[in-house]
Amino acid sequence: MGTLPVEIFNPLDLESFIKESHMVLDLIANYYKDVEKYPVQSKVDPGFLWKHSPTVAPYLSEPLEEILDDVHNIIIPGLTHWQSPNFFAYFQANASTAGFLGEMLCTGLNVVGFNWITSPAATELERIVMDWMGKLLKLPRSFLFSGKGGDVLHGSSCESIVCTLAAARDKVLKEMGGHMNITKLVVYGSDQTHSCLQKAAKLVGIPPSNFRPITTSSSMGFSLSAHDVRVAMEEDLASGLVPMILCGTVGTTGSGAVDQLDGLGHVAKEFGVWFHIDAAYAGSACICPEFRHYLDGVELADSISMNPHKWFLSNMDCCCLWVKNPKLLVDSLSSDPEYLRNKFSDQSNDHEVVDYKDWQIALSRRFHAIKLWIVLRRYGEANLMSHIRSDMKLAKHFESLVVADGRFEVVVPRRFAVLCFRLKLIKGEDGCEMNRNLLDAINSSGRAYMTHTVLRGIFIIRCAIGTTLTEQRRMLMEYGS
Amino acid sequence: MGTLPVEIFNPLDLESFIKESHMVLDLIANYYKDVEKYPVQSKVDPGFLWKHSPTVAPYLSEPLEEILDDVHNIIIPGLTHWQSPNFFAYFQANASTAGFLGEMLCTGLNVVGFNWITSPAATELERIVMDWMGKLLKLPRSFLFSGKGGDVLHGSSCESIVCTLAAARDKVLKEMGGHMNITKLVVYGSDQTHSCLQKAAKLVGIPPSNFRPITTSSSMGFSLSAHDVRVAMEEDLASGLVPMILCGTVGTTGSGAVDQLDGLGHVAKEFGVWFHIDAAYAGSACICPEFRHYLDGVELADSISMNPHKWFLSNMDCCCLWVKNPKLLVDSLSSDPEYLRNKFSDQSNDHEVVDYKDWQIALSRRFHAIKLWIVLRRYGEANLMSHIRSDMKLAKHFESLVVADGRFEVVVPRRFAVLCFRLKLIKGEDGCEMNRNLLDAINSSGRAYMTHTVLRGIFIIRCAIGTTLTEQRRMLMEYGS
Repeated sequence: MGTLPVEIFNPLDLESFIKESHMVLDLIANYYKDVEKYPVQSKVDPGFLWKHSPTVAPYLSEPLEEILDDVHNIIIPGLTHWQSPNFFAYFQANASTAGFLGEMLCTGLNVVGFNWITSPAATELERIVMDWMGKLLKLPRSFLFSGKGGDVLHGSSCESIVCTLAAARDKVLKEMGGHMNITKLVVYGSDQTHSCLQKAAKLVGIPPSNFRPITTSSSMGFSLSAHDVRVAMEEDLASGLVPMILCGTVGTTGSGAVDQLDGLGHVAKEFGVWFHIDAAYAGSACICPEFRHYLDGVELADSISMNPHKWFLSNMDCCCLWVKNPKLLVDSLSSDPEYLRNKFSDQSNDHEVVDYKDWQIALSRRFHAIKLWIVLRRYGEANLMSHIRSDMKLAKHFESLVVADGRFEVVVPRRFAVLCFRLKLIKGEDGCEMNRNLLDAINSSGRAYMTHTVLRGIFIIRCAIGTTLTEQRRMLMEYGS
Repeated sequence: MGTLPVEIFNPLDLESFIKESHMVLDLIANYYKDVEKYPVQSKVDPGFLWKHSPTVAPYLSEPLEEILDDVHNIIIPGLTHWQSPNFFAYFQANASTAGFLGEMLCTGLNVVGFNWITSPAATELERIVMDWMGKLLKLPRSFLFSGKGGDVLHGSSCESIVCTLAAARDKVLKEMGGHMNITKLVVYGSDQTHSCLQKAAKLVGIPPSNFRPITTSSSMGFSLSAHDVRVAMEEDLASGLVPMILCGTVGTTGSGAVDQLDGLGHVAKEFGVWFHIDAAYAGSACICPEFRHYLDGVELADSISMNPHKWFLSNMDCCCLWVKNPKLLVDSLSSDPEYLRNKFSDQSNDHEVVDYKDWQIALSRRFHAIKLWIVLRRYGEANLMSHIRSDMKLAKHFESLVVADGRFEVVVPRRFAVLCFRLKLIKGEDGCEMNRNLLDAINSSGRAYMTHTVLRGIFIIRCAIGTTLTEQRRMLMEYGS
């Protein structure tokens, strides 16, 4: 069985904790300094790392220097650089110093706040920052704890939507008086709703055939028509099905479209259906008064989620979910095994003790709140608004360049910092092929990384502006430095 | 709408990134140095933080010094100290320098590797470390990519079990030829199975009445009887229900019990039911040859999960899931919206390009693999085994103290580093009350934090040994320093 190593194994020795952490910080700082030098989209071939890796873990400890050399020489060249100022793909994932500090504290303190007593400050700080965020977004008080609503931090919008769907499902099943009705429940979104809604619906046991991705149109700016939702719900009711939830989006992934929440909310009310708002991307922008109108109608919703890890300088991962009736969430997600029971939870009331394990999928949870708290305090509302506005300005500038260039056209009116454009069609050419080739050329150049979508058969290049360093460059340019 | 602040807002300025990160590192190092001084279970009252917090986020930036003062003066006193050497509650959440470095890199690089192309190195490193982990655990090759199986890192066992249940559900529904059969599906575990199985079953749409927590007994060491599972399945089949999945546990949360995988596996095969193994806690121990026998029978399973964030020095959060037939997982969890399509995924085959978005609930994913890779390389198999063994030794030592003290008794035979004990019953006393009071006294002393469970009506104090610093103290004691 071998002999134990005789050396003292001390995985939290303070001297090496500090020394080795400094080495990693230097690597990360150098990475940010050099990130623009790397091709944005990685150029490695499938299998590159697999081929060069030992097939088993080492038996003995390796020096950190060697490991970090490998990070530098092998891992980094195999990354697609989400922090590059030239990353314009998908949606950005904002890194920042404050976000990084928050994650360091989360990881260093390493508490697991699933119940209030397992770290009261983790739970209470979460309520505080979520209250702050709700107020920045001018959400109705009915979404906040102080207004009998409730809020929680998840890792992703996908998780928020799964939890919301479970709550909506169980509410309807209870009203209908039996689980066998699960096969009748219907989920509504648009063909522009994020794919996580369809995935979540399937996950919580809704028959795949009961997912309604209602078709949007270019003339409506790819936003979901309340009229079409009503028609779909009426048809489903007529065939014995039961509308369960409607999801509206503020800032769709494809083109940044905004669903008219007010109209959708009224239809949802009319049919007694849960109304969820997915503001994963554009929610951050709504802290600016000039963009807040995109949330008009939120007062009609039952829940709303947005991702600070996209555009709010909060590093991966972080999603805010607000619900008006948290009891429904808890009814669906609570568990109460003996080994987790404690007098604080047993004596809990709505206002004091919250056990967030009952507000999410997993039992374990990281101390997400400390990150968002540091981001909000270190930067403050003013800088966060300025961060959003500078990306909007950049996007507007890029749009003006596209408009000024006769070869290109903007395909969808820009609302936020995503521009959907393409090469204008040339007679006899396949527009899709032509634009796909252009996108391939951009991406394989390594100088920028954009992605695409297809809207009503039209292949569109998406340029999503907003990584942290893109912003920085603009500011340097503008202010001279 | 106010004027933009005129200062340059540069949230990734390198000088402040380094300076502020050093400040946070110092805070964390001081925290580890002082952690034993704090009462392990927080002594604050519900609402303590809420009462002392501003009700809105600040408009302007605050200095980091002030924020960190608040962390020190307000947050830390409100924590329950999972990293205290005197934390013996629930299961430990091991912090380590290597785990911390890995999280720093994950957060600093901040890539989102949902598809292979969104960071090839993130995906390929995940396959490599999961292959290493599988080999450390001597899993059959059929669980590894190289043997046509597959593996993925999730955040938590709960998520792994939700995904596994979704795959098992959809496999059976497909075989049965229709979604309406979802109400017939039955999920099997024991009354000692982690509560996440029941929660996951409900989440994926199985009727709550179709969850079978089969009763265990003291005489069987609280492990699940294959015979009882067979009887339950036969009864369910006789009443028109359909067995869907059986979950066996290696190291139950209540008492560290081990289900006999071999017997359960054969019953599962006989009934054609998915067999999942939850080794969240004790899986780590199975890298030591002397404990590997607890996994005997794993070759009969369809999937197995374990948590490096518990006992494997990997900080929160990290869960390994292996499956024999990854296609079933992907069939349940894949989504393929146009905006995520790319030529690498479109041309993928099983061996080269993996899109991990289709192996988990969320689309977004953190670069978990780099943490586990650094832990494995920095420490090596030898130190990791020594870490497990020293906790086992400590637990054995504590057990000997309990046995030697006539007032106490060990209630469940100890298998790993959790000891289940209680004050012996005194005539005329309520044993439950007496032990509950003792536990309250321990926890409110602030000198240690343990939790409890109730097994067959008996209130038991659980002492789970294994935080990183507990280990360290023992080593210092043993080797003199």
